[in-house]
Amino acid sequence: MKDIEIEIRPIAYVEVEETLGRVMENTSKIVFLEDLEEALTGIEDFSHLYIIYWLHKIKPWSCPLKVHPRGNRILPLVGIFATRTPLRPNPLGLTIVKLVERNRNVLRVKGLDAHDGTPVIDVKPYAPSDIGEWSTPSWWMKLHRQRENNKF
Amino acid sequence: MKDIEIEIRPIAYVEVEETLGRVMENTSKIVFLEDLEEALTGIEDFSHLYIIYWLHKIKPWSCPLKVHPRGNRILPLVGIFATRTPLRPNPLGLTIVKLVERNRNVLRVKGLDAHDGTPVIDVKPYAPSDIGEWSTPSWWMKLHRQRENNKF
Repeated sequence: MKDIEIEIRPIAYVEVEETLGRVMENTSKIVFLEDLEEALTGIEDFSHLYIIYWLHKIKPWSCPLKVHPRGNRILPLVGIFATRTPLRPNPLGLTIVKLVERNRNVLRVKGLDAHDGTPVIDVKPYAPSDIGEWSTPSWWMKLHRQRENNKF
Repeated sequence: MKDIEIEIRPIAYVEVEETLGRVMENTSKIVFLEDLEEALTGIEDFSHLYIIYWLHKIKPWSCPLKVHPRGNRILPLVGIFATRTPLRPNPLGLTIVKLVERNRNVLRVKGLDAHDGTPVIDVKPYAPSDIGEWSTPSWWMKLHRQRENNKF
């Protein structure tokens, strides 16, 4: 296994428009490089998109190997790849957003959990996968219920 | 918008074990760097994972802006970001896989649509999102039905 070099350049940047209490309600603009406008043709026919972005405030390859999910010490210490912590070797973010509208090289989306100025590196159409039965650890469900209650 | 440099290093590599007619039935190993074994602690409690990988056979930033989905000229010419074509500025792959088992620094997974030797750059736990109503273009549904029929 040879070490390979991967060089990625942003295709777009995030401009946060409105931050409400609940991330799902945030609206953001994703402003694409103008040369890429044509690559968005037809994207408005999808209701939801996967956004892959670079967490530019996190230092790469300097993370712990385990964390308590959301820093909550009541929850078990688990490997970072078993969580969605931003502290990861390659600090990538992945969110499914609702596409509100497209205007030339700008997408307005809802539910993007990314700071203003975040570089976006890929966008893919969302369609539900046929997952079948799925399961998550009990700590995940505990956090999920907590979020629902706090409207966070 | 300043151009920033993003340097990503693989966390793992794919070893394809078995390729059957239908991608969903493929089994692959994801072999992590040994130093990262601990970062997998507890991942076995998830049934499914998001795998983000680098399509190392594709030349970055040399893609067309529009394609016919799956090269099918009967379907409309749409922007690459409205499709899952591997021809994209940053050739990233994203698949939801079924986690079959973990053995130390190796995950055995089902349904990974990646060649042997593909560098993996992030892994995140999968849990269904509360998407609500969703929609895709008619060409997407046409392809989907075609795939179902061909068992591809």
